[in-house]
Amino acid sequence: MSAQVIAIDAMGGDFGPRSIVQASIACLSATPSLHLTLVGQPSLLEELLSGQPAVDRSRLTITPASEVVTMDEKPSQALRGKPDSSMRVALELLREEKVQACVSAGNTGALMALSRYVLKTLPGIDRPAMVAAIPTQRGYCQLLDLGANVDCSAEHLLQFAIMGSVAAQTLGIARPRVALLNIGTEDIKGNQQVKLAASLLQQARGLNYIGFVEGDGLYRGEADVVVCDGFVGNILLKSSEGLATMISSRIEALFRRSLLSRAVGALALPLMRRLQADLAPARHNGASFLGLQGIVVKSHGSAGVQGFQSAIQRALIEIQEDLPRRLHGRLEDLLL
Amino acid sequence: MSAQVIAIDAMGGDFGPRSIVQASIACLSATPSLHLTLVGQPSLLEELLSGQPAVDRSRLTITPASEVVTMDEKPSQALRGKPDSSMRVALELLREEKVQACVSAGNTGALMALSRYVLKTLPGIDRPAMVAAIPTQRGYCQLLDLGANVDCSAEHLLQFAIMGSVAAQTLGIARPRVALLNIGTEDIKGNQQVKLAASLLQQARGLNYIGFVEGDGLYRGEADVVVCDGFVGNILLKSSEGLATMISSRIEALFRRSLLSRAVGALALPLMRRLQADLAPARHNGASFLGLQGIVVKSHGSAGVQGFQSAIQRALIEIQEDLPRRLHGRLEDLLL
Repeated sequence: MSAQVIAIDAMGGDFGPRSIVQASIACLSATPSLHLTLVGQPSLLEELLSGQPAVDRSRLTITPASEVVTMDEKPSQALRGKPDSSMRVALELLREEKVQACVSAGNTGALMALSRYVLKTLPGIDRPAMVAAIPTQRGYCQLLDLGANVDCSAEHLLQFAIMGSVAAQTLGIARPRVALLNIGTEDIKGNQQVKLAASLLQQARGLNYIGFVEGDGLYRGEADVVVCDGFVGNILLKSSEGLATMISSRIEALFRRSLLSRAVGALALPLMRRLQADLAPARHNGASFLGLQGIVVKSHGSAGVQGFQSAIQRALIEIQEDLPRRLHGRLEDLLL
Repeated sequence: MSAQVIAIDAMGGDFGPRSIVQASIACLSATPSLHLTLVGQPSLLEELLSGQPAVDRSRLTITPASEVVTMDEKPSQALRGKPDSSMRVALELLREEKVQACVSAGNTGALMALSRYVLKTLPGIDRPAMVAAIPTQRGYCQLLDLGANVDCSAEHLLQFAIMGSVAAQTLGIARPRVALLNIGTEDIKGNQQVKLAASLLQQARGLNYIGFVEGDGLYRGEADVVVCDGFVGNILLKSSEGLATMISSRIEALFRRSLLSRAVGALALPLMRRLQADLAPARHNGASFLGLQGIVVKSHGSAGVQGFQSAIQRALIEIQEDLPRRLHGRLEDLLL
């Protein structure tokens, strides 16, 4: 297997460079063919690395960048005001083909704007989309768009469907079932956008379009790819995270209520904890930007070490499967 | 306290008239001032009642209706093709002021179409909305619209906000915090519809508008009333139900995995079950149609006896609080 080289935006995210450095070192240990370059302030990164004696520095370099995009910065500000941000320098390494993918836990809007500007979209794609793997009763479903595009046309939804289908294939599903998210499964249900998109998806050659899926059907695992606009997808994702958190804390409260339940809880809580990681999907698995001329994976801003490791893992899979080239080929077949 | 009289559509819903009759009898026992009329096929209903000796028939009558709206029927078909359906006859009793509210577990789209046609909307309301109480970390939030209106203008969202606020007041919240559901909390976030609605809500006199809330903020209890269009609301509600169901079944599977976990599970499951009822909100609490000249409560189609009882309870509260008249007064102040 040939080497994989990934640029890590080491400065972004709520949890700070220390966790990102830790996650990077853990991934290097797990994957001998992996090379990383940490992009950020060299003195800070060297200091964090100096505390880690077992690092193979032949596979870990530092690329200097003097600025940092903050979490609350406007995308336009990051784009125009910070030419030497760690996020931008990492993306430029990707454009110059010095690395094969870029992973960041930084400001989502800024990452999307910079990615589009630096990398450009694939031919046939108007707008990149964000996709993440959501746990279902039967496995996982790829949900997109998760918030990159708030107002979408039916054509955009078709592009998302094609990209989601190819992404699911690279994750091992031979003939992904593609569905449109809707408020009913009958043809007459839904808004104009989704009805128009349905007729486009029905006609798309080679796409295994299975029709509409509802919010509960998504979690029952009725589709491998679920397509919606970024407004709906973001609300679904965040409300699911919020509900999962609420359920977790209610379970813990339940087990604290009486002596008996406290005893049961002491036994049950370790089991419950195992479940919790599963229930905050984007937080743990990372979200891919699809439709760019390059691989960009976004780790959740508050994901911590494990979440960032998962994001690097997803980037590795996309490199091995050569996702952008496969997307490009599929789009040429279907759209052009 | 004066008597309350409610018409029950005894034929609608996935779970059949038997459960509806049982729920009706249970509510009569619990509330001595309550009178019910079961609308449907008299011979069938008499037969179901004959098995229940303790019924106070002075407070329980039967109103004949020869037809039934099925769960998969188109609203237009129910409207034009079935003049003697149990759903329609129940609504006509309400229009004729023979009853003070109507409860149905039948086809949602048909119930909304028939309600609008038979009862008409309140002055100032273009479209009725569906609202339900969603459990949060701090209590409940009133979420609307849940699917009655797929394409909404900013003006519609304003009307929903006013109606949701009055509904929350009748449930005991003096100054409900009203928020718009969005994909970020900053002013620049969201689609055109939600940005326009924000400026309308800011200007609405007497409305305690607190700004945008995200999907996770809803479950953290950041608002008492959360407003969105029916497409987004329906997807949020159903995906929440789907996720809650998935978590429940994963927990049960977790507890079956080993001998130890089975022992823990035997102790923990009764605690978990208590939680489950809470986590499928619309299924258990019923959804109110707001903005009509009359009280209509929809029980979830698969809610069973307990769910239908909750729906009757919600109708009782709305009668006691005189919700349509309060809504009318508030709308006159604000809109006309």
